[in-house]
Amino acid sequence: MAPLRALDYARTHRRRFLEELMTFIRFPTVSAQPAHATDLRRCASWLAKHLRWIGLEKVRIIPGERHPIVYAEWRHAARRPTVLVYGHYDVQPADPLSEWRSPPFQPTVRGTNIYGRGACDDKGQMFTHVKALESFLKTGGRLPVNVQCLFEGEEEIGSPSLLPFVARNKRHLRADVAVVSDTRMLAPDRPAINYAERGALGVELEIRGPGKDLHSGNFGGAVHNPLQVLCEIVASLHDPDGRIAIPAFYDRVRRWSDEEREFMEEIGPSDARLLRDAEVDHGWGERGFTAYERTTIRPALTLNGIAGGYQGPGVKGIIPARARAKLSFRIVPDQDPYEVDRLLRQHIARIVPPTVRVTVRTLSAARPALVNRGHPAMRAAALAYRKGFGASPVFLRSGGTIPVVSTFQKVLGVPTVLLGFALPDDNIHAPNEKFHLPNFYRGIATSTWFMHAIRAGAGVAHARPPASPVTEGQV
Amino acid sequence: MAPLRALDYARTHRRRFLEELMTFIRFPTVSAQPAHATDLRRCASWLAKHLRWIGLEKVRIIPGERHPIVYAEWRHAARRPTVLVYGHYDVQPADPLSEWRSPPFQPTVRGTNIYGRGACDDKGQMFTHVKALESFLKTGGRLPVNVQCLFEGEEEIGSPSLLPFVARNKRHLRADVAVVSDTRMLAPDRPAINYAERGALGVELEIRGPGKDLHSGNFGGAVHNPLQVLCEIVASLHDPDGRIAIPAFYDRVRRWSDEEREFMEEIGPSDARLLRDAEVDHGWGERGFTAYERTTIRPALTLNGIAGGYQGPGVKGIIPARARAKLSFRIVPDQDPYEVDRLLRQHIARIVPPTVRVTVRTLSAARPALVNRGHPAMRAAALAYRKGFGASPVFLRSGGTIPVVSTFQKVLGVPTVLLGFALPDDNIHAPNEKFHLPNFYRGIATSTWFMHAIRAGAGVAHARPPASPVTEGQV
Repeated sequence: MAPLRALDYARTHRRRFLEELMTFIRFPTVSAQPAHATDLRRCASWLAKHLRWIGLEKVRIIPGERHPIVYAEWRHAARRPTVLVYGHYDVQPADPLSEWRSPPFQPTVRGTNIYGRGACDDKGQMFTHVKALESFLKTGGRLPVNVQCLFEGEEEIGSPSLLPFVARNKRHLRADVAVVSDTRMLAPDRPAINYAERGALGVELEIRGPGKDLHSGNFGGAVHNPLQVLCEIVASLHDPDGRIAIPAFYDRVRRWSDEEREFMEEIGPSDARLLRDAEVDHGWGERGFTAYERTTIRPALTLNGIAGGYQGPGVKGIIPARARAKLSFRIVPDQDPYEVDRLLRQHIARIVPPTVRVTVRTLSAARPALVNRGHPAMRAAALAYRKGFGASPVFLRSGGTIPVVSTFQKVLGVPTVLLGFALPDDNIHAPNEKFHLPNFYRGIATSTWFMHAIRAGAGVAHARPPASPVTEGQV
Repeated sequence: MAPLRALDYARTHRRRFLEELMTFIRFPTVSAQPAHATDLRRCASWLAKHLRWIGLEKVRIIPGERHPIVYAEWRHAARRPTVLVYGHYDVQPADPLSEWRSPPFQPTVRGTNIYGRGACDDKGQMFTHVKALESFLKTGGRLPVNVQCLFEGEEEIGSPSLLPFVARNKRHLRADVAVVSDTRMLAPDRPAINYAERGALGVELEIRGPGKDLHSGNFGGAVHNPLQVLCEIVASLHDPDGRIAIPAFYDRVRRWSDEEREFMEEIGPSDARLLRDAEVDHGWGERGFTAYERTTIRPALTLNGIAGGYQGPGVKGIIPARARAKLSFRIVPDQDPYEVDRLLRQHIARIVPPTVRVTVRTLSAARPALVNRGHPAMRAAALAYRKGFGASPVFLRSGGTIPVVSTFQKVLGVPTVLLGFALPDDNIHAPNEKFHLPNFYRGIATSTWFMHAIRAGAGVAHARPPASPVTEGQV
């Protein structure tokens, strides 16, 4: 028996669904920028109202450290599994604005894509579930499973409120499986289920030297330049072979079996493919690993930005008084973000010269996550993709970080199915972010099939106790 | 016989002089920023009108490569020397704006200082000569010497138009001595004459990697980060001892005699003094040299700014597509800026990895300059300071660059007297730039006395032919 009425409803209302998604994207919900706090609040209100309208219950807006969480549920499917649906309505900063073909917060359809910041990451993807739930509720008045929705506004800043929220509501949030759509497929006809995410550590480094900007003629050569020191510190973080040069950094990095690496080799993208997606001619990184391995089972340290001194046109002859860099680590099992933070701080303390003062600020931290590929919920997801996209998914590792996945594992003991609908060319985090409209509609169908397939349990409810098979470190 | 009437006039009109200086500062003449081009044109017009009003003749606004030169003269002192008065009406960029106590282009008097961008560098200092000339012309209807004024609007961007202008008008600009007030004293009661300026080379470095900003989760570890490469290149430009690590860079750096270094030691600021002025606790730089030597007879390479990637609040998980740095060298006899430019480009070409593309842009170039301390014009300057400030000047080297000084030497064979009125705490090139008002008024008196003292020739006119004693490389 197929969820035909729900699928029909979704097909009939595609146009409205798209218009609603555009409304959703128009909120400039940049969580990193305090100036947008009101936009996040407005968006959360809109979303809460929308969830009530589709028929979800106990809809609540829960204040977060900086931006609220929107919660909703429907729990009338007795003896059926409970699915925790997670998504995030916050987005990355849109700059550099000049490189957008259409304004980031004026969603625009060009060809078969909708362009806008958050179109894919994650408003478009999370909306597939909202629309699937609506399709069930508006046609049959009920859902095939119990559902709890958790939509946060702080994912792009490291989910500072979500972990405490989940820990506080551990009992209430007891679910059998979580589903998150915030990851990539290989191509429009090649769906993928991510079973691993890297963890992350975001850090800001500030170097201060003289009390004010100095004339580089009067002082150049006799005063240490904080911006130069910053570059020297940054340069010291990698060795010439592309490995991270922080002592003890690799101590806890897990070595994978030949079997796992062969599986990855067989399924994963080739080096050529990955470089083509990145629009670069040459690869880079740790020797002895493929590009796919370098971005998934190996850690990375990326310099996300530097600000220091004069950046306008022409020349300004100064020694800047201070300089700042943003760094982010991607970490892998069995690394711990707080230990990496400590190693970084120790390394910097060892090498920083006495001529400057340094401040290290930890901006975000998330553990790496792994989900058992053999979990019954994975089978339901595979079926859903076959129905939604006409193709079986492959099992991939992702190099990205969805902090909530490790939170769900650690705190709730719940496996997360990463049912991703993004394409490699969707320009996630970059200008001209887009979402492929066929993936939006197929995503809704896939979510519909997933809820349908998982209703029978298929071992889902039994996969939890006694010991979670999905704790970090198992594949 | 003293220039009493001119000195009296200047004393009487102090209040108006200050108001005129404030009007002058209000033009936001930031030459590096194309958006201010109109402001420079408006300021040049105002200045030209003002020079006509004080009684100068043949006032002209000559279009430059980017901003105009203002020229004026008075040549009715037969058989008297000709003085070339140089100054610049353009200013440094005012950012970071947030650090100014009063807006940079709303000149504000607080205590005995006037605050504003350009208050000291160089509007206030060049205005001392304008007001001295006015004081002679408005009281006696004539000047004690022939005068040619050359006020440019491109000093802070390396004077690209002035060298060709001077070369084109070599015959017309025949003078006996040039005077420039754009340098520092040691303290309000300790005047100084600079007899050496470092040269300069301004360069912009751009590193491009992927075609667009990439998600650092998806690609971190497998794609070379252009901002990281930039840091590594910058870090490679100094060795751990603070020396510039570009091969052959020091080949032409002149070694000075023990006598000259002892003279410098005796006269020049101590390390402690220089570090106090810089507001730093620790010195830095080449071993075996004092801070004063490091900033005058030794070259320096300063990283003036870096822009790359995300610079807003919080985290943005990207590998930036490109990164830019601004670098400036200060060079010394017998280095040549174009040769240094070539050495830098060769070094970068050698070390840049194949994973990125690099562009080096030369933004400005100026030769170092030296003036013979024994030249008769220096004696006139010393007398003028004694009369204006009540103290004899010391002879100092400056670490800064006034491109015109080497141009006047090379092209016109004319020595430049650097009659500086800036104080070490005037925040040149930094927020809260100021000019000490007593120095403004004493500067006018000093300029008055200088014109007066030099009128007798005192060997000035004879110091030029047959061979210029002031060509680069002689002290």
